Formats: sequence, C-alpha cells, structure tokens
Amino acid sequence: MQMNNYIELIDKKLDEFIKIEYPETIFKSMKYTVTLPGKRLRPIMCLETCKMLGGEIEDAIPTACAIEMLHAQTLIHDDLPCMDNDDYRRGKLTNHKVFGEAIATLAGDALLTYAPQVITKYSQNLSPSVILRVLNEYFKYAGAYGVIAGQVVDIESEGKYLNINSSSENKEDAEKILEYLHLHKTSDLFQLAMRTGAIIAGVEDDRLSEITEFAKTFGLAFQIADDILDEISTFEQMGKTMGKDKAEGKLTYVSLYGLEDAKCKLTCLLTKCHDIMDKQNMSSVIFSQIIDNILQRAGNNK
Amino acid sequence: MQMNNYIELIDKKLDEFIKIEYPETIFKSMKYTVTLPGKRLRPIMCLETCKMLGGEIEDAIPTACAIEMLHAQTLIHDDLPCMDNDDYRRGKLTNHKVFGEAIATLAGDALLTYAPQVITKYSQNLSPSVILRVLNEYFKYAGAYGVIAGQVVDIESEGKYLNINSSSENKEDAEKILEYLHLHKTSDLFQLAMRTGAIIAGVEDDRLSEITEFAKTFGLAFQIADDILDEISTFEQMGKTMGKDKAEGKLTYVSLYGLEDAKCKLTCLLTKCHDIMDKQNMSSVIFSQIIDNILQRAGNNK
Repeated sequence: MQMNNYIELIDKKLDEFIKIEYPETIFKSMKYTVTLPGKRLRPIMCLETCKMLGGEIEDAIPTACAIEMLHAQTLIHDDLPCMDNDDYRRGKLTNHKVFGEAIATLAGDALLTYAPQVITKYSQNLSPSVILRVLNEYFKYAGAYGVIAGQVVDIESEGKYLNINSSSENKEDAEKILEYLHLHKTSDLFQLAMRTGAIIAGVEDDRLSEITEFAKTFGLAFQIADDILDEISTFEQMGKTMGKDKAEGKLTYVSLYGLEDAKCKLTCLLTKCHDIMDKQNMSSVIFSQIIDNILQRAGNNK
Repeated sequence: MQMNNYIELIDKKLDEFIKIEYPETIFKSMKYTVTLPGKRLRPIMCLETCKMLGGEIEDAIPTACAIEMLHAQTLIHDDLPCMDNDDYRRGKLTNHKVFGEAIATLAGDALLTYAPQVITKYSQNLSPSVILRVLNEYFKYAGAYGVIAGQVVDIESEGKYLNINSSSENKEDAEKILEYLHLHKTSDLFQLAMRTGAIIAGVEDDRLSEITEFAKTFGLAFQIADDILDEISTFEQMGKTMGKDKAEGKLTYVSLYGLEDAKCKLTCLLTKCHDIMDKQNMSSVIFSQIIDNILQRAGNNK
C-alpha cells in the first residue's frame, strides 16, 4: 500500500471510530484533535509492520487508530497552559483554545480509555490473549513507564542544562537525561506502534526485539529532527509556534550539541535504521520513504 | 470481613501496587492522592460483591485497587484550577498544590493507564477472557460514556438552572440533566465496582443486571448525600472546602429541590437499596452498614 492510501484509510477509520454522541462537547473535542490532518506516522508504522511480517492490515487497524488517538491525547495535554501553553497545532487552534481547558483536559482523559476500548471493540479477528498482549503494550508505553516518564523528565530538565561546558561532568548527565527523555517522550509511541503491529502479525519474541531496536532508533532520530526543525523552521512551515525550545530553556539535541552536530547525529541514526532494515530482512518501501523524508527535511544533506 | 479489615487490606495493596521508581516525581504524585486516607467505598463494594456472590476476595483485589486509582484520578483532575479549583481534599493539600499543575495533570493521565495495568498484571487467577470483560467495564465506565460524560454535563449545567420556578418547563429539563449527571459522575464508579466484582465471581447476566440496579440506586443516593453535606457541613468535618456548589451555581439536588426534599429523596433511595437487597437475596452486612452510615450522616433522621 502507498503512503497516501494508508493515510486515507486511517483518516476514514478515525472518523468512523469517534461518533458524536451525547454529551456532544466531549466527543467533538476528542475528534477535533484526533482528526487534524497529520502524517499519521505511528498508525502507518503499526500497519506496515503487521503487513511486512505477514499479518493482515485489517486486523491491526483498530490498534493503529488507537495509537493515533493516544498520540492526540499527548498533544492535547502537552498544549495546555500548565504544560507547554501552545495556541496552535498543525496550523489550527489547540484543543483548549477551542473547547476551553476543562473540556480539553477531559477529552485527553477520555481518549486514554477510549483508545484501548477501540482495540477491544473492533479487533474481532484477534484472540483474547493477543488482544491482552496488545493492551499490555498500550498500558506500558502510554503510562508512567512510557511516554509520561519522558514528559516528566522533560519538564524537570527545563532550564537546568544551559550553557554546558563540553568538558564538564554536567554534560555527561545532560546526555544521559536527553537520551532518556527522547527515548520515552518520542520513541515509546513508535515502539508501541511497531511492537503491536508485530504481535498482531504473530511473530516470535526474537523478531520482536529486532523490531523494537528499529523503532527505538527511528524514534530518537525523529525527535532530533523535531529539535532541529524547531530551530530552523517557521510557523508557516510547521503550523505551530517554533523556537519555543530555546526560549524555554529546553534540553534538546540542538541546545546540547549545536545545530551541525545534531544534524550529524540525525544522519547517523537514520543510516542505522537502514542498516537494521537490511540486516534484519525488514523490506519496506514505506519505511525507506519515511526515513528519507526526515533526512531531506532536517538532515545534513539539506 | 469487617469494614476496617477491608480498609486495611486495600490500603496495604494500594501501597504495594504503586512503587516509587524513576522518574520519582510521577510515582510520588500518583501515590500521594491514591493513598490519602479514605473510606475506600468503591473497592470495598467490589470485593464484597465478589464475596457475596461466591467468588474469592483475592481474585478481585487488583480490580478493586484499580477502581480506587481511577477514583483518585478523577479527584486529581477535578481539583485542577481549570476544573473545580480546590486546594484541599481529605484534609490535605490537593495534588497540584503539592506537585504543580503539570505533574498533577500527568499523574492523572498515568493513573488512567496504570489502573488497568494493575488488573492485567496481578490477576493471575483470572482467564484472559474474564480479564478482558473486566477491562471493557473499566474502559466504558472510566471514559466518555461513563464518569467523564457526567463531568462534562456537570460543567455545562453550571449557572444554567438557578432560581427555577417549580412549575416551569425548565424544571423538567433540570431534573433530567441532574439525574443524568449524577448517574454518570457518581453511580458509574459504583456500577463499575460491583459489576466487576460480580464478573470475577462468575455470575450470569441476569444477576449482573440486579447488581447494576443496586449500584445505580446507591450511587444516586451517595451523590445526593454529597450534595446535602456540601450544604450543611464544615471544612473541619469534611476536609475540603464546603458550600462551593452553591457559590458556583452548580446544579444539585439541594439547589433544585431544597434541603428537606433532598433529604427525603435520599432516605427514599436508601430504602430502595435495602429493598433490592432483600428481594434479590443480596445478603451483606457490609452493604447494610454503608447504607445506614450515609443515612445517619445526611438523611432525614439526622
């Protein structure tokens, strides 16, 4: 399946899965952010992993959409005034700017339990034990051991690692913290996407660890690209306020290593993604396209 | 088992189930509200229902604790400045007053996925299909079709139904809205507690609907008692700011019917709870004690 077919399929299903029922405000608020046009990278990587490993795309659709809902949940709460306080996301007003903070908070909460409900409700072809494995992945990566751990460390590191001297011990700490927060804040959702795709395809544990390695590496690269783009892009290009990382003293690859070294690190990680694909016999035109697209937008060869 | 034994058991397990790991802030924040001393009514009703229907208390402990975690989650987010803006809960500072708004928001999020994770991780004696049934109940009652629906309608009805004339059409609307918001905001967690207790005990569907009827009625009574206590109690008695419903123009039984009629309605619903117990052969000293305690604190015979 081509990239645009994937996006069309996912958009259609996301629209189907969230119906506007009473009390309408909450479903409208949930649907608003979930259906903002996006690249749908996480659900695509779930579906493509399932297909690449011999599974049926159809069986992974509820899980793929659930992961996009979870992603939307993190965006809604991240954008709140008490968190990153962002007014725009994907070129549109953020959820709380449209629905108010109380409803936005509740819409994020609702998505956290609606997403796994979509998995159990629509995964008719999966056995209870496979569904339970998928849910356990969801709980792990969505929670305090996953994406939330990354967000907490992100918040706690704000303003703490400015103007670090390259020889200082502090830099080693900062490097460890940075890798931890990127792994959780960003890689975890890609790991969740690819691991559940693989579980639905029915793979063995050793294959799962190769998939996880790819997702981890890709997630790190994706976050570094995001750090770079925050530095070099405009609101018009990205649909959200840029340059905020620097203004808020966030710990990022760019703040720690500078723009050029961040680009080198990105290129290096994306090359590693290609290597893992070759070595582990992960043949996917889609993954190659996604990698190359990130390299073009933020990498060294720009 | 006696009430205080139940509370001891639940408190011990809640403490065990939330370990303080890295990043410590998030686990401390989650644990802070979950372990505030409380009546533990919801988990007790889960365990007691399971026992009353022939199940093993031990099998229901993870689910009972998960429901208390979910309850704590609703309290953390309800208390946020963008929602009810409360500084005190159970006599202690609210979560965001101790950990800040960002961490409190994330702690609530984390509990929403940690609670079902506790169910899957610690319910060794339950089959995958029973665990899935329990999780589906959790997703339904925790989300936009459950407790969140009640909160949304609560927010939307604020200030809308003041000084209603008893003959006006508006009063009929208000009555419907009030019942809807109480059923979801409050009854849903009691329904979740009792239904999952019954499912773990292995009961048939018709028995489940009787249990649901009891939980619905009890939940309504519990919320009316809460409305009454908000009007007649002091901070010292309740450990939180009282009289806020009135100050904020909240739609409550007291605002709609007045204090005396609210007390009558409460007494009537609690009598109905006893009737259901007698008729449906639900023999439980614990449930009788809980009902009588509420009647004593807020009912007509005070």
